[in-house]
Amino acid sequence: MEKELRFKKEDLMDFVVRYMSKLGVPEADAKIVGDVLISADLRGVESHGLLRLGSYYGNRISKGFIDPTTPYKIISETPTTALIDGGNGCGQVVSYKAMQMAIEKAKTGGLAAITVKNSNHFGIAGYYSMMALEHGMIGICMTNSQPLVAPTYGRTAVMGTNPISVAAPAHKAHPYVLDMATSAVAYGKIQLYDKKEEKIPLGWGIDDNGLVTDDPKKIKPGGHGALLPLGGMDITAGYKGFGLAILVEVLCSLLSGGHFLTQVGSPSKPEPTGVAHFFMAINIEAFRPLIDFKLHMDEMITLLKNSPLAVDRDEILIAGQREFDYEAYNNINGVPLIQPIVNDLMADADKVGVSFPIDRVL
Amino acid sequence: MEKELRFKKEDLMDFVVRYMSKLGVPEADAKIVGDVLISADLRGVESHGLLRLGSYYGNRISKGFIDPTTPYKIISETPTTALIDGGNGCGQVVSYKAMQMAIEKAKTGGLAAITVKNSNHFGIAGYYSMMALEHGMIGICMTNSQPLVAPTYGRTAVMGTNPISVAAPAHKAHPYVLDMATSAVAYGKIQLYDKKEEKIPLGWGIDDNGLVTDDPKKIKPGGHGALLPLGGMDITAGYKGFGLAILVEVLCSLLSGGHFLTQVGSPSKPEPTGVAHFFMAINIEAFRPLIDFKLHMDEMITLLKNSPLAVDRDEILIAGQREFDYEAYNNINGVPLIQPIVNDLMADADKVGVSFPIDRVL
Repeated sequence: MEKELRFKKEDLMDFVVRYMSKLGVPEADAKIVGDVLISADLRGVESHGLLRLGSYYGNRISKGFIDPTTPYKIISETPTTALIDGGNGCGQVVSYKAMQMAIEKAKTGGLAAITVKNSNHFGIAGYYSMMALEHGMIGICMTNSQPLVAPTYGRTAVMGTNPISVAAPAHKAHPYVLDMATSAVAYGKIQLYDKKEEKIPLGWGIDDNGLVTDDPKKIKPGGHGALLPLGGMDITAGYKGFGLAILVEVLCSLLSGGHFLTQVGSPSKPEPTGVAHFFMAINIEAFRPLIDFKLHMDEMITLLKNSPLAVDRDEILIAGQREFDYEAYNNINGVPLIQPIVNDLMADADKVGVSFPIDRVL
Repeated sequence: MEKELRFKKEDLMDFVVRYMSKLGVPEADAKIVGDVLISADLRGVESHGLLRLGSYYGNRISKGFIDPTTPYKIISETPTTALIDGGNGCGQVVSYKAMQMAIEKAKTGGLAAITVKNSNHFGIAGYYSMMALEHGMIGICMTNSQPLVAPTYGRTAVMGTNPISVAAPAHKAHPYVLDMATSAVAYGKIQLYDKKEEKIPLGWGIDDNGLVTDDPKKIKPGGHGALLPLGGMDITAGYKGFGLAILVEVLCSLLSGGHFLTQVGSPSKPEPTGVAHFFMAINIEAFRPLIDFKLHMDEMITLLKNSPLAVDRDEILIAGQREFDYEAYNNINGVPLIQPIVNDLMADADKVGVSFPIDRVL
């Protein structure tokens, strides 16, 4: 177990703003980037948190692959829709604005959809879908991403892990927050098994011949092998995950005229990525009283949680529940970061000439 | 292999109309029911076709569990949304009207969403999503259904197979038509393995203890065992399929105030079902020129189909492609029905006193 340190959220935010400002990101924008990344660490999704501050964002800005001013432009707009060019800026900034716009439009329009092209990695999809919750809306967010996943019957990585997030408010229960890659697992999970020299379950990925494998070393998307879509091989319905990944492309890149599939660049390569996103807000009050919806959500969640457990299991987990529990704990105890990530952040800080003088909580 | 007979579409439609009329279904409504069911047989989805005419619809109408006049009512409506009470009528009828309404609203509103409660089984979800295609729209359709699927870590059937369908038009290529249950497989597939006395792949279902099993006999939802969500067990990300099934409930039953989870009745039980549906139409022209979208769809599909194949595979199949191929073939050669289904239809015809005097094509 890596040593875990804990920090105040405000201190980390202050650091991100100073770091990003040095790179030419306006303060208000830097706060958005910081909030999205720190939220991921708070919610226990450390793979999408500050871990990526340098590699996915800072370094790429300093090399000119991302425009720090995020000069996004609205290409077309109606009272319920918009198509935005992200200006190859910070994915978080244009995504935050786009979801805000979807929510504003849905207040009068009942529902609204915004599609964004020419953007970059935006962090956790759940951040944006959850923005709808406090407005009494259902939030939906999707994004495409660099190729890591093979189509069913294929052998190379053609599709991104293309996540889908949907958030819906409840009354006393935690909101339902689905935030899932449409691949069986994230690549990071396979790398972890590789590090531990363990075999992976069948269904996570394929080798260079397109055959399912339990050897994590045989899965190096971009080189050889690929991740499998949700469902795994065809016999366990991997074609459904394949279909969902294409749904994400339809709403993100096809509706926006952005890059799709192998056209999407990787944050690890010296090139702009051209990532495309999709945001939707559905105003519950346009259909029925919000309180009725929320009370029914509580009732549904109770029904699920009270249903009989499999042997040796102690709880049925609703999508998002674990993340809300982490968040509550970490809001009190501080944002957890393991030592290697802190070391990287200190090195990132050094590079641009800011300090990382953060008082640890613990 | 069961003997397959082939019939003219018009003859089958005429039969369905005569059969339904005897049960009190207005002719225009009977034509909708007939078209949805025959479309399933044409598209090779025989499990959702005329096979169910008696058991899911006719018998239930004659017993009073479904109102043949489908007295649906609009409960609330805005220029982009509606909530409809299906009046416990024919699911196909209210669904057809609801999708039509979504398309009409999206013509001026950019996009529209309709949610329906108090309905019944509506046939294939893809029928309604595809209605959007000829209008240059993306169609989305979902429905909940009777409990067959266990939540991750559960041991009993609490959720329906809750399908999701999304259709998007292309230019020369077939449209993309996803139409998938959010369970790993349909229950019918497990029954088929049981009949053949074959083991099922791990990941399709669980036994009475909530443990994954390869024995189809141990999976009898309602009695013991249950289907697993898409993804199978938790290690292969079955919690994602679980999350998708709940997404379907959120948009169908929660947004409409309808029945959810175990509240949904089964077509095999002597009770109304209270099924809930969701329909959405997204007007592509509200975002970008339709022709640009369609040409990009062709390009994306070509990119997918040209990507390297796994060993021993000869084609990458896009969602819906196989069904369009079946449909083209069957439109020329006649609607295929196996002898046992024809026998059942003749018995159904007898029950209400109409003839099944159909000239076979082959």
